[in-house]
Amino acid sequence: MKDLTNFDAYDVGFDIPAKPGMDEADIQTPALVLDLDALERNIKKMGDYAKAHGMRHRVHGKMHKSVDVAKLQEKLGGAVGVCCQKVSEAEVFARGGIKDVLVSNQVRDPAKLDRLAQLPRHGARTIVCVDDIDNVAELSAAAQTHGTEIECLIEIDCGAGRCGVTTTEAVIDIAKAIVAAENLTFTGIQAYQGAMQHMDSYEDRKAKLDIAIAQVKDAVDGLKAEGIDCTLVSGGGTGSYYFESNSGVYNELQCGSYAFMDADYGRILDKDGNRIDQGEWENAFFILTSVMSHAKADKAIVDAGLKAQSVDSGLPVIFGRDDVEYIKCSDEHGVVMDPQGVLKVNDKLRLVPGHCDPTANVHDWYVGVRGGKVECVWPVSARGRAY
Amino acid sequence: MKDLTNFDAYDVGFDIPAKPGMDEADIQTPALVLDLDALERNIKKMGDYAKAHGMRHRVHGKMHKSVDVAKLQEKLGGAVGVCCQKVSEAEVFARGGIKDVLVSNQVRDPAKLDRLAQLPRHGARTIVCVDDIDNVAELSAAAQTHGTEIECLIEIDCGAGRCGVTTTEAVIDIAKAIVAAENLTFTGIQAYQGAMQHMDSYEDRKAKLDIAIAQVKDAVDGLKAEGIDCTLVSGGGTGSYYFESNSGVYNELQCGSYAFMDADYGRILDKDGNRIDQGEWENAFFILTSVMSHAKADKAIVDAGLKAQSVDSGLPVIFGRDDVEYIKCSDEHGVVMDPQGVLKVNDKLRLVPGHCDPTANVHDWYVGVRGGKVECVWPVSARGRAY
Repeated sequence: MKDLTNFDAYDVGFDIPAKPGMDEADIQTPALVLDLDALERNIKKMGDYAKAHGMRHRVHGKMHKSVDVAKLQEKLGGAVGVCCQKVSEAEVFARGGIKDVLVSNQVRDPAKLDRLAQLPRHGARTIVCVDDIDNVAELSAAAQTHGTEIECLIEIDCGAGRCGVTTTEAVIDIAKAIVAAENLTFTGIQAYQGAMQHMDSYEDRKAKLDIAIAQVKDAVDGLKAEGIDCTLVSGGGTGSYYFESNSGVYNELQCGSYAFMDADYGRILDKDGNRIDQGEWENAFFILTSVMSHAKADKAIVDAGLKAQSVDSGLPVIFGRDDVEYIKCSDEHGVVMDPQGVLKVNDKLRLVPGHCDPTANVHDWYVGVRGGKVECVWPVSARGRAY
Repeated sequence: MKDLTNFDAYDVGFDIPAKPGMDEADIQTPALVLDLDALERNIKKMGDYAKAHGMRHRVHGKMHKSVDVAKLQEKLGGAVGVCCQKVSEAEVFARGGIKDVLVSNQVRDPAKLDRLAQLPRHGARTIVCVDDIDNVAELSAAAQTHGTEIECLIEIDCGAGRCGVTTTEAVIDIAKAIVAAENLTFTGIQAYQGAMQHMDSYEDRKAKLDIAIAQVKDAVDGLKAEGIDCTLVSGGGTGSYYFESNSGVYNELQCGSYAFMDADYGRILDKDGNRIDQGEWENAFFILTSVMSHAKADKAIVDAGLKAQSVDSGLPVIFGRDDVEYIKCSDEHGVVMDPQGVLKVNDKLRLVPGHCDPTANVHDWYVGVRGGKVECVWPVSARGRAY
């Protein structure tokens, strides 16, 4: 494998978009660009918030898939570790030196269970979610095989409609099984309300979270009545963290997108009716793209299409410009309306992608810029680690 | 860089989904799976068609981004080479031994021009598209710097609304500049009508192609009147190749998706009103996914979400099943309606993705299967090569 720190081994434009020390203008496009000043401010702000509210912040590594960003979140934001969604991602983070790793998802495949059970050997506290009592014996057997300890959170479906149990009775049943199982530890509750994070209105989001918090509280109280304590009650995202932080029920946040921001999250509104990308958080994450054709007077064609981003949550927005608009996306092209013909071939634009997580997953590298210079180039360490 | 043929260097489940010789049932999911029998039949069928119609077939490498698939297309389908959309892709194909490479796109960035001009050193005939007379001097200078020859096609926008000129006058002006330029060869016309490929009705597609063919014929005739001959007139896709093949104007096809098929292309209708994935082409390309939670009786949660595919052209379809339906896609999860509760945890499903090109670009590997066994594992060689 290439030495990820030896940039001389890479051809700029072939397998890497830039090298440290280059001018920002020389970055080969399309490329993911991080505004390091904005990124650091976002990270510090969320870290300060969590600390002030007595919350642990387990940053969501599935968003950025980067060991470097996770370590920056530990350093500047006091992050306690990461959560992620796949065993292969957890391996990347654990091998990269993250010491507290939660797979905030179910692991059922025998080969994946076997790999999960080996994670503690990398020195990482290893936590996984459970939503099926049959999974308890599987996890216990894998941990026993490797002589390791796996911590378990019971996942509650508090509105996202994906994985997770829906009743306190089910939580208690599974918790008892975990408590009784060899090489497993019952650690608490996972309850992330993913479906409400992108609702525009603060009040609508609050209404959904109030329901979720009541549901989680019922489970925590139910467990307590059985003599089972929750060490962690974990959840919360960029559109909801203030609700969990003030709930008196949760003690750990799992925010991810706040660090980068994207066009879809940016549109949601805070308590005062302001977009959250206009004050609460800064856009730190961009697709840098170049105009590569302007054969029609009113249309510029740029080099970032579907293979440079995910458009599941809408088209990208051109940062800092209201004179031009990205209106169409095909495999390798974006069509930018340029009614006044202000763009020229080779002009560069910063796109704020619709959805940061799957956009990061398309790229191999982050190019960190500050003051017009490339300061760092970081691998998207867990890119493609979907297994 | 890891030796791509030394599978012992890879951990199954961490950085590769399978190894040759494994049972299909042991592939780690989500993974891209190629049905090799179906793939070979598709490739041979298109090759036979092109041959019978006296057409060159330059397969679209941007679809699969795989040197291995391109070589199979040369071997079984008589492909003359590849087209692709980016210089970095062209480098992968040229380095991989493809001897005739067309960048069916504009190259304007100085660093990319410099790299393009070095492509012939890999032994590849190098062709690029031009839609701006200013690009001619840029290409010529780059080719002179490296002492190489670049062939040029003039791109006509025949309806896609992206790059390309729209008048015969513009074609002639640019062609004359190419003819006069050092180290450039005028080779002909690029005219791909991308916008009509996915129109359901055969007659609607034909109407669009009739317009495009007339436009291209006018340009070819106009050039001829100036004493400039076209060696290549190139274009055509999976939804149109029969029109170009019978046009008397085009002499080269650029089909890509026919080899893999996808859900969006599959829905278009042939001349007789039949879906093209029900006879004309076979589904050879799948996302293999596993059920990883079934906590609700009527919903199975599978492990292929937005990071295992692109949903720009709609959700994936579950192959060969009408009892279950993929209804929702989030970052790492798919929600499958299972009203009768027929699915169990760890059951595997084959998904036909909405759009093959950007879905392939999310993955690092193709797993080729035949008769229930993994026969080959091929890198998605130009994955992420978007520069």
